Amino acid sequence: MIGRLNHVAIAVSDMEAATAIYRDTLGAEISDKVAQPDHGVSTVFINLPNTKIELLEPLGDASPIAKFLEKNPSGGIHHICYEVDDILAARDKLVAQGGRVLGDGNPKIGAHGKPVLFLHPKDFLGTLTELEQA
Amino acid sequence: MIGRLNHVAIAVSDMEAATAIYRDTLGAEISDKVAQPDHGVSTVFINLPNTKIELLEPLGDASPIAKFLEKNPSGGIHHICYEVDDILAARDKLVAQGGRVLGDGNPKIGAHGKPVLFLHPKDFLGTLTELEQA
Repeated sequence: MIGRLNHVAIAVSDMEAATAIYRDTLGAEISDKVAQPDHGVSTVFINLPNTKIELLEPLGDASPIAKFLEKNPSGGIHHICYEVDDILAARDKLVAQGGRVLGDGNPKIGAHGKPVLFLHPKDFLGTLTELEQA
Repeated sequence: MIGRLNHVAIAVSDMEAATAIYRDTLGAEISDKVAQPDHGVSTVFINLPNTKIELLEPLGDASPIAKFLEKNPSGGIHHICYEVDDILAARDKLVAQGGRVLGDGNPKIGAHGKPVLFLHPKDFLGTLTELEQA
Protein backbone atom coordinates (compact mmCIF):
# COMPACT_ATOMS: atom_id res chain seq x y z
CA MET A 1 0.00 0.00 0.00
CA ILE A 2 2.54 2.63 1.01
CA GLY A 3 4.76 3.92 -1.78
CA ARG A 4 7.56 6.47 -1.72
CA LEU A 5 8.78 8.20 1.41
CA ASN A 6 7.52 11.67 0.60
CA HIS A 7 9.36 13.48 3.40
CA VAL A 8 10.76 13.39 6.90
CA ALA A 9 9.63 16.40 8.96
CA ILE A 10 11.93 17.96 11.55
CA ALA A 11 10.46 20.51 13.97
CA VAL A 12 12.76 23.42 14.77
CA SER A 13 12.42 26.48 16.98
CA ASP A 14 14.69 28.73 14.91
CA MET A 15 14.37 28.35 11.15
CA GLU A 16 17.32 30.61 10.37
CA ALA A 17 19.65 28.49 12.46
CA ALA A 18 18.14 25.29 11.07
CA THR A 19 18.52 26.27 7.44
CA ALA A 20 22.10 27.38 8.09
CA ILE A 21 22.89 23.88 9.39
CA TYR A 22 21.44 22.17 6.31
CA ARG A 23 22.63 24.70 3.72
CA ASP A 24 26.04 25.65 5.06
CA THR A 25 27.18 22.79 7.28
CA LEU A 26 25.58 19.84 5.48
CA GLY A 27 25.75 21.46 2.03
CA ALA A 28 22.21 20.70 0.93
CA GLU A 29 19.90 22.54 -1.48
CA ILE A 30 17.09 24.29 0.38
CA SER A 31 13.88 26.05 -0.65
CA ASP A 32 12.64 29.44 0.46
CA LYS A 33 10.70 29.67 3.69
CA VAL A 34 6.92 29.62 3.19
CA ALA A 35 4.34 30.60 5.81
CA GLN A 36 1.49 28.09 6.01
CA PRO A 37 -0.99 29.89 8.25
CA ASP A 38 -3.65 27.20 7.75
CA HIS A 39 -1.26 24.67 9.27
CA GLY A 40 0.30 26.81 12.00
CA VAL A 41 3.82 26.35 10.65
CA SER A 42 6.38 27.82 8.31
CA THR A 43 8.16 25.34 6.08
CA VAL A 44 11.51 25.01 4.34
CA PHE A 45 12.27 21.98 2.18
CA ILE A 46 15.67 20.33 1.94
CA ASN A 47 15.76 18.82 -1.53
CA LEU A 48 17.70 15.55 -1.53
CA PRO A 49 18.15 13.46 -4.70
CA ASN A 50 15.54 10.90 -3.64
CA THR A 51 13.25 12.61 -1.12
CA LYS A 52 12.81 15.75 1.01
CA ILE A 53 13.35 16.87 4.56
CA GLU A 54 10.64 19.29 5.68
CA LEU A 55 11.73 21.78 8.36
CA LEU A 56 8.78 23.02 10.42
CA GLU A 57 8.85 26.17 12.54
CA PRO A 58 5.86 27.23 14.68
CA LEU A 59 3.68 29.99 13.23
CA GLY A 60 1.04 31.76 15.29
CA ASP A 61 -0.27 31.13 18.77
CA ALA A 62 -1.71 27.64 18.35
CA SER A 63 0.92 25.84 16.31
CA PRO A 64 0.47 22.05 16.28
CA ILE A 65 4.22 21.67 16.85
CA ALA A 66 4.46 23.98 19.89
CA LYS A 67 4.11 21.18 22.47
CA PHE A 68 6.60 19.00 20.66
CA LEU A 69 9.18 21.80 20.82
CA GLU A 70 8.49 22.38 24.53
CA LYS A 71 9.44 18.75 25.10
CA ASN A 72 12.29 18.83 22.55
CA PRO A 73 13.80 22.32 22.69
CA SER A 74 16.69 21.41 20.34
CA GLY A 75 14.13 20.23 17.78
CA GLY A 76 13.64 16.70 16.53
CA ILE A 77 12.03 14.44 13.98
CA HIS A 78 8.30 15.17 14.14
CA HIS A 79 6.80 12.79 11.56
CA ILE A 80 7.39 10.77 8.42
CA CYS A 81 5.14 10.85 5.37
CA TYR A 82 4.44 8.01 2.96
CA GLU A 83 2.69 8.35 -0.38
CA VAL A 84 -0.41 6.31 -1.20
CA ASP A 85 -2.37 6.12 -4.44
CA ASP A 86 -5.83 6.33 -2.87
CA ILE A 87 -6.02 7.88 0.57
CA LEU A 88 -9.62 6.85 1.28
CA ALA A 89 -8.93 3.23 0.39
CA ALA A 90 -5.77 3.35 2.55
CA ARG A 91 -7.69 4.81 5.47
CA ASP A 92 -10.45 2.24 5.25
CA LYS A 93 -7.96 -0.62 5.18
CA LEU A 94 -6.05 0.75 8.17
CA VAL A 95 -9.15 1.43 10.23
CA ALA A 96 -10.47 -2.06 9.46
CA GLN A 97 -7.26 -3.42 11.02
CA GLY A 98 -7.63 -1.32 14.15
CA GLY A 99 -5.31 1.55 13.18
CA ARG A 100 -6.42 4.93 14.49
CA VAL A 101 -6.54 8.04 12.32
CA LEU A 102 -6.11 11.40 14.05
CA GLY A 103 -8.79 14.10 13.93
CA ASP A 104 -12.18 13.35 12.45
CA GLY A 105 -10.83 10.63 10.19
CA ASN A 106 -11.27 12.58 6.98
CA PRO A 107 -8.35 13.71 4.81
CA LYS A 108 -7.38 17.36 4.92
CA ILE A 109 -5.47 19.33 2.34
CA GLY A 110 -1.85 19.32 3.50
CA ALA A 111 1.01 21.75 3.09
CA HIS A 112 1.64 20.42 -0.44
CA GLY A 113 -1.95 20.95 -1.58
CA LYS A 114 -2.75 17.22 -1.53
CA PRO A 115 -5.04 15.15 0.71
CA VAL A 116 -3.31 13.91 3.87
CA LEU A 117 -4.12 11.94 7.00
CA PHE A 118 -2.15 11.42 10.19
CA LEU A 119 -2.04 8.02 11.89
CA HIS A 120 -1.86 7.57 15.65
CA PRO A 121 1.77 7.17 16.77
CA LYS A 122 0.89 4.48 19.32
CA ASP A 123 -0.41 2.26 16.53
CA PHE A 124 2.63 2.85 14.30
CA LEU A 125 5.78 2.21 16.36
CA GLY A 126 5.75 5.47 18.30
CA THR A 127 6.06 7.31 15.01
CA LEU A 128 3.66 10.02 13.90
CA THR A 129 2.94 8.80 10.38
CA GLU A 130 1.37 10.91 7.63
CA LEU A 131 -0.16 9.49 4.46
CA GLU A 132 -0.34 11.73 1.41
CA GLN A 133 -2.24 10.93 -1.77
CA ALA A 134 0.49 11.25 -4.40
CA MET B 1 27.68 17.57 0.60
CA ILE B 2 24.89 15.25 1.73
CA GLY B 3 23.30 13.17 -0.99
CA ARG B 4 20.48 10.63 -0.84
CA LEU B 5 18.55 9.82 2.29
CA ASN B 6 19.84 6.30 2.81
CA HIS B 7 17.37 5.31 5.52
CA VAL B 8 15.22 6.34 8.45
CA ALA B 9 15.77 4.08 11.47
CA ILE B 10 12.90 3.24 13.82
CA ALA B 11 13.70 1.54 17.12
CA VAL B 12 11.19 -1.11 18.19
CA SER B 13 10.94 -3.39 21.19
CA ASP B 14 9.11 -6.22 19.39
CA MET B 15 10.27 -6.91 15.85
CA GLU B 16 7.50 -9.39 15.10
CA ALA B 17 4.82 -6.83 15.93
CA ALA B 18 6.71 -4.11 14.06
CA THR B 19 7.12 -6.11 10.88
CA ALA B 20 3.45 -7.10 11.01
CA ILE B 21 2.51 -3.40 11.04
CA TYR B 22 4.66 -2.59 8.01
CA ARG B 23 4.00 -5.79 6.05
CA ASP B 24 0.33 -6.45 6.80
CA THR B 25 -1.17 -3.09 7.81
CA LEU B 26 0.89 -0.72 5.64
CA GLY B 27 1.43 -3.26 2.86
CA ALA B 28 5.16 -2.72 2.40
CA GLU B 29 7.87 -5.10 1.20
CA ILE B 30 10.15 -6.16 4.05
CA SER B 31 13.45 -8.03 4.29
CA ASP B 32 14.31 -10.93 6.56
CA LYS B 33 15.47 -10.17 10.09
CA VAL B 34 19.25 -10.13 10.44
CA ALA B 35 21.16 -10.24 13.74
CA GLN B 36 23.97 -7.69 13.84
CA PRO B 37 25.83 -8.70 17.00
CA ASP B 38 28.63 -6.18 16.36
CA HIS B 39 26.02 -3.41 16.53
CA GLY B 40 23.83 -4.74 19.34
CA VAL B 41 20.72 -4.79 17.17
CA SER B 42 18.71 -6.95 14.83
CA THR B 43 17.54 -5.25 11.64
CA VAL B 44 14.68 -5.54 9.18
CA PHE B 45 14.52 -3.27 6.14
CA ILE B 46 11.33 -1.87 4.69
CA ASN B 47 12.05 -1.40 1.00
CA LEU B 48 10.26 1.66 -0.34
CA PRO B 49 10.58 2.74 -3.99
CA ASN B 50 12.98 5.59 -3.15
CA THR B 51 14.61 4.73 0.19
CA LYS B 52 14.45 2.35 3.14
CA ILE B 53 13.11 2.25 6.67
CA GLU B 54 15.41 0.33 9.01
CA LEU B 55 13.68 -1.31 11.96
CA LEU B 56 16.05 -1.83 14.90
CA GLU B 57 15.41 -4.26 17.76
CA PRO B 58 17.80 -4.56 20.71
CA LEU B 59 20.16 -7.55 20.63
CA GLY B 60 22.23 -8.58 23.64
CA ASP B 61 22.77 -6.96 27.01
CA ALA B 62 24.35 -3.67 25.94
CA SER B 63 22.30 -2.60 22.95
CA PRO B 64 22.87 1.03 21.95
CA ILE B 65 19.10 1.45 21.54
CA ALA B 66 18.12 0.08 24.97
CA LYS B 67 17.98 3.49 26.67
CA PHE B 68 16.02 5.01 23.80
CA LEU B 69 13.38 2.28 24.17
CA GLU B 70 13.22 2.79 27.94
CA LYS B 71 12.28 6.41 27.22
CA ASN B 72 10.07 5.51 24.24
CA PRO B 73 8.47 2.16 25.03
CA SER B 74 6.20 2.27 21.95
CA GLY B 75 9.30 2.75 19.78
CA GLY B 76 10.16 5.81 17.74
CA ILE B 77 12.37 7.30 15.07
CA HIS B 78 15.94 6.77 16.26
CA HIS B 79 18.05 8.36 13.51
CA ILE B 80 18.25 9.38 9.87
CA CYS B 81 21.13 8.52 7.54
CA TYR B 82 22.43 10.59 4.64
CA GLU B 83 24.87 9.36 2.02
CA VAL B 84 28.15 11.19 1.36
CA ASP B 85 30.79 10.50 -1.28
CA ASP B 86 33.79 10.87 1.03
CA ILE B 87 33.17 10.38 4.72
CA LEU B 88 36.54 11.68 5.90
CA ALA B 89 36.18 14.89 3.88
CA ALA B 90 32.62 15.27 5.21
CA ARG B 91 33.78 14.75 8.79
CA ASP B 92 36.62 17.25 8.47
CA LYS B 93 34.30 19.90 7.02
CA LEU B 94 31.72 19.36 9.78
CA VAL B 95 34.26 19.40 12.58
CA ALA B 96 35.85 22.58 11.18
CA GLN B 97 32.41 24.22 11.54
CA GLY B 98 31.98 23.08 15.13
CA GLY B 99 29.85 20.00 14.53
CA ARG B 100 30.54 17.17 16.95
CA VAL B 101 31.05 13.57 15.84
CA LEU B 102 30.14 10.82 18.31
CA GLY B 103 32.68 8.30 19.56
CA ASP B 104 36.36 8.70 18.73
CA GLY B 105 35.64 10.64 15.55
CA ASN B 106 36.69 7.86 13.21
CA PRO B 107 34.30 6.09 10.85
CA LYS B 108 33.22 2.57 11.77
CA ILE B 109 31.86 -0.11 9.48
CA GLY B 110 28.08 0.11 9.76
CA ALA B 111 25.32 -2.43 9.43
CA HIS B 112 25.52 -2.18 5.62
CA GLY B 113 29.27 -2.89 5.51
CA LYS B 114 30.15 0.71 4.67
CA PRO B 115 31.94 3.42 6.69
CA VAL B 116 29.61 5.44 8.89
CA LEU B 117 29.74 8.25 11.44
CA PHE B 118 27.11 9.58 13.83
CA LEU B 119 26.76 13.32 14.43
CA HIS B 120 25.76 14.81 17.76
CA PRO B 121 21.99 15.39 17.89
CA LYS B 122 22.38 18.71 19.70
CA ASP B 123 24.33 20.11 16.76
CA PHE B 124 21.84 18.80 14.17
CA LEU B 125 18.33 19.89 15.21
CA GLY B 126 17.83 17.33 17.95
CA THR B 127 18.20 14.62 15.33
CA LEU B 128 20.70 11.79 15.60
CA THR B 129 22.21 11.98 12.13
CA GLU B 130 24.28 9.24 10.51
CA LEU B 131 26.52 9.75 7.49
CA GLU B 132 27.31 6.74 5.32
CA GLN B 133 29.90 6.67 2.56
CA ALA B 134 27.82 5.51 -0.39
